[in-house]
Amino acid sequence: MPELRKDPIIGRWVIIATERSRRPDYTQEPVYKGDEEAFCPFCEGNESHTPAEIAAVRPRHTNPGSPGWDVRVVPSIAPFLGIEGDIERRGRGIYDITNGIGAHEVVIETNKHVANMADLSQDQIAKVIGCYVDRMNDLEKDKRFKYVLIFKNYGLPSGGSKVRHTRSQLIATPVNPKRVKEELVGAKKYYEYHERCVYCDIIAQEMRDKSRLVMEHDGFIAVAPFASRFPFEIWILPKKHSPDFVSINAEMRSNLAKILKKVLLKLKKGLDDPPYNFMIHTAPFRRSKPHGYWKTIEHDYHWHLEIMPRMTRVAGFEWGTGFYICPITPEEAAGYLREIEV
Amino acid sequence: MPELRKDPIIGRWVIIATERSRRPDYTQEPVYKGDEEAFCPFCEGNESHTPAEIAAVRPRHTNPGSPGWDVRVVPSIAPFLGIEGDIERRGRGIYDITNGIGAHEVVIETNKHVANMADLSQDQIAKVIGCYVDRMNDLEKDKRFKYVLIFKNYGLPSGGSKVRHTRSQLIATPVNPKRVKEELVGAKKYYEYHERCVYCDIIAQEMRDKSRLVMEHDGFIAVAPFASRFPFEIWILPKKHSPDFVSINAEMRSNLAKILKKVLLKLKKGLDDPPYNFMIHTAPFRRSKPHGYWKTIEHDYHWHLEIMPRMTRVAGFEWGTGFYICPITPEEAAGYLREIEV
Repeated sequence: MPELRKDPIIGRWVIIATERSRRPDYTQEPVYKGDEEAFCPFCEGNESHTPAEIAAVRPRHTNPGSPGWDVRVVPSIAPFLGIEGDIERRGRGIYDITNGIGAHEVVIETNKHVANMADLSQDQIAKVIGCYVDRMNDLEKDKRFKYVLIFKNYGLPSGGSKVRHTRSQLIATPVNPKRVKEELVGAKKYYEYHERCVYCDIIAQEMRDKSRLVMEHDGFIAVAPFASRFPFEIWILPKKHSPDFVSINAEMRSNLAKILKKVLLKLKKGLDDPPYNFMIHTAPFRRSKPHGYWKTIEHDYHWHLEIMPRMTRVAGFEWGTGFYICPITPEEAAGYLREIEV
Repeated sequence: MPELRKDPIIGRWVIIATERSRRPDYTQEPVYKGDEEAFCPFCEGNESHTPAEIAAVRPRHTNPGSPGWDVRVVPSIAPFLGIEGDIERRGRGIYDITNGIGAHEVVIETNKHVANMADLSQDQIAKVIGCYVDRMNDLEKDKRFKYVLIFKNYGLPSGGSKVRHTRSQLIATPVNPKRVKEELVGAKKYYEYHERCVYCDIIAQEMRDKSRLVMEHDGFIAVAPFASRFPFEIWILPKKHSPDFVSINAEMRSNLAKILKKVLLKLKKGLDDPPYNFMIHTAPFRRSKPHGYWKTIEHDYHWHLEIMPRMTRVAGFEWGTGFYICPITPEEAAGYLREIEV
């Protein structure tokens, strides 16, 4: 019999098909299709084809916009939000509108034409993570922004573009996104009842139980979440409690790079290079001491990274209900990925 | 500049790209690919290839499971939830589990091999809607179920299967889905403040404003919602307030069939036969007089049908934040669809 499982943070039910006999129906599409265009705006030497550099990891003797860099951050060429202007909230009858102010940046993860972050070196991934932290710290200075989401689309089915050069994106928004609020509210409710962080409790249970553990490594764990929405969904969590992704020091960046690379390689090797998304969930900017509803946020929220392979399609039932149907159990998924040697 | 618009019911922000210069990047996939298998289990004459008939619209002199029917309802051959057993809630450490009990039925909308509901006659669609009502009323008798979602997946990108014969699905769940609860809570909050139904207010504003109105027809309106998640998203709402889809009488069924057919035809003709999902949102079962938190549900909730063409892909930003990015304005979408003659 299938199981209904409830996500302990936001209370979302998922249907986990537990019968092995029912084969997962992965309508897996290829990560990319057909030939790629010969010209890539993100490769070294083509710096003039992107908007002006915002930040970079590059030797001191090189100039912004010139070759010689390791990681580059540039504005998106097709930004979803505009960087110039004021927030201006207004109504239109019963409806609410805000100017679409925000930042939309692209983190070019390497100067080489590599498609999958899994194929970068651990050191290179650590540099990318360092860039994420620097950009978040910089964007926090802009008082218009409440939140920054760092995310990645790998492959066409994940919503990625045809250009394959590996990169991540960063979007700063003037409002707290719904999904982030749900997590914050859920974590706070759990904390109010238990006086413990729900993520810390998840980590403790997963380390004891081990059935959903993919790997554990230098202060991080990678688990298939109990109420997985997608087959082979993986969360990477720091064992040490912190609400803020930007709190990670150089050593933790390196360790995060290590476990992220290993997990991405396991997915690539074990699942035939699937398309995926990942995103970092961290606490919103707090420019003053947390107070009121959010006064326990330092204790109740715990940053983490969510990886979602995109091998199934989301259909009407999921859109209509917010219920997800996962065709394999997270225990099976974790067991399978544990065995993949990387 | 793009706009951030807030859904007045559940408070979800969406980004509406308002610059016409930025062309919507529809990576539109074909609704179906390649050749279809010659055999279809849903065509007349192949009744023995489905599980036993649950209900049908068929002449009195014909037997269940035999030819001669107009609409047939059968259990799904690959149900997400099992019909046999008790609910049994239990914990596993910090996690909550419930047996995956539910009903998963398929409404075969015609005995002919037609793929798109848009191509059925208005009468035929009215019969299908009648079947939806009958099945919901029947499932309400099963005390294990709290909610029934009726939905449709048309085409592979919508999560539909390779078999093209037009059909809808119905899933009864033992818990109220998250997305449904959000709507109920949002509608209730609006009612508490305004003492009016938010959907009735939306209908009034859309009929005055007309910019997002696709059509108005015999007691129903079709609008592109102000905070559309997807390009050409359309909601069909009954002008007369009612929380319950099952309350519609024969005349309203026929009128709903008419507007639904017209909207589906406009999508088919105007957008080159796009894949789509639709779903009916109605109040959960109420086997006793509503009380406590839900005591105003009769006044604050309003059933409706949501249609989502699936021409864009959902990427990491949307998954990570619950924010949606709609590449065209609902005003443009409605204007375009208004002009399509059907």
